[in-house]
Amino acid sequence: MKLEKEIKWRYATKAMNGQKVAQDKVNAIVDAARYAPTSSGLQPFKILVISNPELKAKITPIAYNQPQIEQASHVLVFAAWDSYSEERVNSFFSYSNKERGLPDSATDAYRTQLLGMFANLTKDQQFAHAARQAYISLGFALLEAAAQEVDATPMEGFVNAQLDELLGLQAKGLKSVLVVTLGYRDTDKDWLVNLKKIRKPNAELVEVLD
Amino acid sequence: MKLEKEIKWRYATKAMNGQKVAQDKVNAIVDAARYAPTSSGLQPFKILVISNPELKAKITPIAYNQPQIEQASHVLVFAAWDSYSEERVNSFFSYSNKERGLPDSATDAYRTQLLGMFANLTKDQQFAHAARQAYISLGFALLEAAAQEVDATPMEGFVNAQLDELLGLQAKGLKSVLVVTLGYRDTDKDWLVNLKKIRKPNAELVEVLD
Repeated sequence: MKLEKEIKWRYATKAMNGQKVAQDKVNAIVDAARYAPTSSGLQPFKILVISNPELKAKITPIAYNQPQIEQASHVLVFAAWDSYSEERVNSFFSYSNKERGLPDSATDAYRTQLLGMFANLTKDQQFAHAARQAYISLGFALLEAAAQEVDATPMEGFVNAQLDELLGLQAKGLKSVLVVTLGYRDTDKDWLVNLKKIRKPNAELVEVLD
Repeated sequence: MKLEKEIKWRYATKAMNGQKVAQDKVNAIVDAARYAPTSSGLQPFKILVISNPELKAKITPIAYNQPQIEQASHVLVFAAWDSYSEERVNSFFSYSNKERGLPDSATDAYRTQLLGMFANLTKDQQFAHAARQAYISLGFALLEAAAQEVDATPMEGFVNAQLDELLGLQAKGLKSVLVVTLGYRDTDKDWLVNLKKIRKPNAELVEVLD
């Protein structure tokens, strides 16, 4: 693997040492997340960047008291669209066509087809689709963090409704999906740091159909 | 971004030229997918690797006749677990503890908690959770493909039930989630290759809460 160094260096850090991550590194990690591909390019989520100690302290109990929230330098919250509204979809295509120097009508056929597809989904199904896209972005963020030698812990273990309320997400049409803490490993306190990285062998995970 | 070259080079290739991707590059891309993190490390999916022309021809109509399926060198299908059975979860922890030289009981408290959590989810919710994990793996695969200068097209546009049937996934307790074609761009025939890559500006996608 060309990205072997990044891929094998990273792990879900269980204890961080409180050291600040430089702003340019945070920016690079967020940018990698921003450049990840998403279905039809819609980028149906927001990334909230939190470094305020009081706010992190309020997130801790919502995240089952995982210590990395407060030990981290920055906490990223990925919050997906609660639905694909016409306004959101149209606004993306307007922006995209403008950036490409195309008339707003250039993507009408595709846009209309897409809106029809979303209209056939319930609001929950729309959210489920949007939420998946955030996981691609997570993958990009984790690899850029590793390339920056910044530790990162992806978390699904938090009470989504409570985090939504704390961050006022409902009013923005968003629902929290993922949390990622960014910081530096505390080697002395991290029970995972010296354990072997476990992945299923190729023969179990991969099937060649030929 | 340290991974800027990879991140900006890649795009959802719309036409491929049929050129074969060397096996070591395919292996590296699949390995990157295999090394991606997943919730509790369970890796709740399989990756099917397809290069057989007859099989690709059968997938084409299922994927709304997207030409990349047959133009690609290899097609990857990510198929997620249809549920988190006790057997699957226990088997992972057995493997992991063995690899780490720990007794099988080492993770009993966590394993039991996890099984309890899954037991509170419907089978559909379990699948939805598993499916999300495949998207992290997709992110890793796409960046390794770019690092290998191999083009890749991630696709959700296929009839899942039909692909499941073609590949016999139901009998394996799997459901198709994602398709990725691997190959090389056909610059003359690809309508997207020369269009500007569009991403929302930082100010729209990212919110700093401080």
